[in-house]
Amino acid sequence: MSASAYDVVVIGGGSGGLAAAFRAAGHGAKVAMLEPAPLGGTCVNVGCVPKKAMWLAADLAERIGLASRMGFEVPAEPGLDWAQLVQRRQGYIANIHASYQKRLGETGVARISHRGRLLDAHTVECDDGTQLLARHIVIATGAHPLKPDIPGAELGGVSDDFFALQSRPARVAIIGGGYIAVELAGVLRALGSDVALLVRGQRLLGHFDAEVSAQLAENLRLQGVELHFGCEVKALERQHGRVRAVLQNGPEHSVFDNVLFATGRVPSTHDLGLEQAGVVLGEKGAIEVDAYQNTSVPGIFAVGDVTGRVTLTPVAIAAARRLMDRLYGGQPDARLDYDNVPSVVFAHPPFGTVGLSEEEARKRFDKVSTYHSRFRPMLQALGDGDVRTVFKMVCAGDDEKVVGIHLLGEGADEILQGFAVALKAGITRRQMEDTVAIHPTSAEEVVLMR
Amino acid sequence: MSASAYDVVVIGGGSGGLAAAFRAAGHGAKVAMLEPAPLGGTCVNVGCVPKKAMWLAADLAERIGLASRMGFEVPAEPGLDWAQLVQRRQGYIANIHASYQKRLGETGVARISHRGRLLDAHTVECDDGTQLLARHIVIATGAHPLKPDIPGAELGGVSDDFFALQSRPARVAIIGGGYIAVELAGVLRALGSDVALLVRGQRLLGHFDAEVSAQLAENLRLQGVELHFGCEVKALERQHGRVRAVLQNGPEHSVFDNVLFATGRVPSTHDLGLEQAGVVLGEKGAIEVDAYQNTSVPGIFAVGDVTGRVTLTPVAIAAARRLMDRLYGGQPDARLDYDNVPSVVFAHPPFGTVGLSEEEARKRFDKVSTYHSRFRPMLQALGDGDVRTVFKMVCAGDDEKVVGIHLLGEGADEILQGFAVALKAGITRRQMEDTVAIHPTSAEEVVLMR
Repeated sequence: MSASAYDVVVIGGGSGGLAAAFRAAGHGAKVAMLEPAPLGGTCVNVGCVPKKAMWLAADLAERIGLASRMGFEVPAEPGLDWAQLVQRRQGYIANIHASYQKRLGETGVARISHRGRLLDAHTVECDDGTQLLARHIVIATGAHPLKPDIPGAELGGVSDDFFALQSRPARVAIIGGGYIAVELAGVLRALGSDVALLVRGQRLLGHFDAEVSAQLAENLRLQGVELHFGCEVKALERQHGRVRAVLQNGPEHSVFDNVLFATGRVPSTHDLGLEQAGVVLGEKGAIEVDAYQNTSVPGIFAVGDVTGRVTLTPVAIAAARRLMDRLYGGQPDARLDYDNVPSVVFAHPPFGTVGLSEEEARKRFDKVSTYHSRFRPMLQALGDGDVRTVFKMVCAGDDEKVVGIHLLGEGADEILQGFAVALKAGITRRQMEDTVAIHPTSAEEVVLMR
Repeated sequence: MSASAYDVVVIGGGSGGLAAAFRAAGHGAKVAMLEPAPLGGTCVNVGCVPKKAMWLAADLAERIGLASRMGFEVPAEPGLDWAQLVQRRQGYIANIHASYQKRLGETGVARISHRGRLLDAHTVECDDGTQLLARHIVIATGAHPLKPDIPGAELGGVSDDFFALQSRPARVAIIGGGYIAVELAGVLRALGSDVALLVRGQRLLGHFDAEVSAQLAENLRLQGVELHFGCEVKALERQHGRVRAVLQNGPEHSVFDNVLFATGRVPSTHDLGLEQAGVVLGEKGAIEVDAYQNTSVPGIFAVGDVTGRVTLTPVAIAAARRLMDRLYGGQPDARLDYDNVPSVVFAHPPFGTVGLSEEEARKRFDKVSTYHSRFRPMLQALGDGDVRTVFKMVCAGDDEKVVGIHLLGEGADEILQGFAVALKAGITRRQMEDTVAIHPTSAEEVVLMR
């Protein structure tokens, strides 16, 4: 059997894989991409995109409630045809699929709808037996949700199952305290479900600034989410078509229509022939890469969630592009700087963060100063909403270099990006103050913190 | 008659005057503030604050329309009890008045509810005859709307009259092409009025980037605003309880329930005794000040709209604070840098801008490059909205320093502030690109412009 030869074979058609393929093709490389599932990976199909669509709907529900108190003739808690919303959402995703497919055609990337396995550092075998020869191989297979190993775990779902819902569940348990748990809890509650958030630890969002995370927990409570910390899930059991959670330190009413595990994600490295090709995996099963996305095997690279490093879509995309700029774009030093990557938790309201938490800053620097702004945004005040905004800035050293910005409030998702550029550029508190505010906005409070 | 003596007498209780008074008192000065009208000036009473409240309502109306197409059981064009909205808005403003009054008490500033006139550089006479002696006098009397000198001008209103409306006008003409005209037109249209925007010139927002301003005009048309350029208003006439506008190049149907002039604002310098005290006014009647807010008379200073320089609330506040830091805070060089002041036009969607337009940049620099992003935000796509976003970045020089950022789209009001900090700090296009995007947001498109 003769093998096709490529400059680059990308395994995985998610955001990182697509970015690698498009950028390599843009630099003139001959590229094949293997992906049996719909294009776009987790982000487009069961992650960022449908999550944001549901968050936008939840946000609308909240705004309609505010509008009902400001003189608009709308119900405070409007009915929602969930199936219609999901249909709109999936239509949006179908358009993304189509646009990727079109771009693959335009850029001349060969899309191969098969799984691939490494035979060696330059050979990939597709699951139909075809072999591909490659100068460079990029692994971009992402990650997938993990359920805990408890009796009845199969009765619970994961985030993928949330996206498969066709109607509003009446009562839901979310197991976990990370950003996915927080996002699912917030959306479901805003769209009218009773939600219990069951957290093994004593706080939410372990790596985020503790003070602002505590306010986020308070916001969830204000929203009506039942929060249980120190709660262990021992087992799940069927009960009259619903699911009973056997809990330690959980709510008394522990029967749910849906139980969703948001208990972590693991790199998708199974059955890729990595061991056979000699690619070293780290603890937790992620592919080990250096600062240039090189794996332990020359010619094999990895980007995105499969590397376990800052598992965010834009990180995968940026790493993939720089890798291809390095290999085919004449930029031998190109690599992604993983420091000060901003990210947003799409809670209600959202929580954006870049740089160090106060706790991290105090470990690294002798002199740390913090500034705050707490206020009720005008829309909340006009509509009798009670959700407040908390902004926090962490500075270090005598010149008060800004090392952390933590924004919890309406608009934080959109406000953060520009401040992330400024922080990464090394601005000081003085430079923040010297920028004139934009009135009346929430964002102005970031430059006016005291 | 004995005269009370103060370190600082502030004439005017708007944003700039209040900021001067509070900051001076904070530095230990003995302060009096003269203001016969409600505190907060234009911004709080007939400017930014009620404008933003109406804009928020208009934004809600648009979002409810989108929600109606996404599965929510709400009317696409919901009814609105305008009087209830206005009542909420005025309640919000009353709270601001109360909080200012409280803070005056806490800081020990003497509030004097009278108009004041300068007798000389250190004496102010109140209109009840009281005289105040002052080491320093700060003029912060703001500006007010100007109507053109045409027959029947008294039949038209100004922005203040918009805020006095207690119900939705069926058909409105807005005269003008500046930001106030654009804002009034957008709000009224979104809340259901038929709106004709009558512009003497050939474009909107004369000092803003032309390309993005043209898109804003297109957005107004999409929204259903009738736009007439090159339109001269010759006179207004009564007609059966409504107002007929006598127009050159205007719409055929020229009878309106309300005609609002947004034809400019003039500094409020009348009857302040400025001439008598020797304070020099510039052309257009603004008080001339140097970079340190000094007028032509030692001991007399001016801040805010009355100086005619960058007439924005946060500019007045920042200038006032720095003036008092200079006079009483031991910071002899403190002054406001008027360069790169960001501002937002609250259109639908909003238009934020900082730095140079492309046209200005091409005048100042040999090498200018521009980058764009045009897209339909996810919410618009999900709700069949047709309003697109246009972002534009203007760079100068070989290192592509970012000298202008122009954002027209949902969230632009909140997105701009952080980028304004970054631009003022002197970042390059490369530094924009090196910051990882936050997905999925609109803001990420600013760092991804091509």
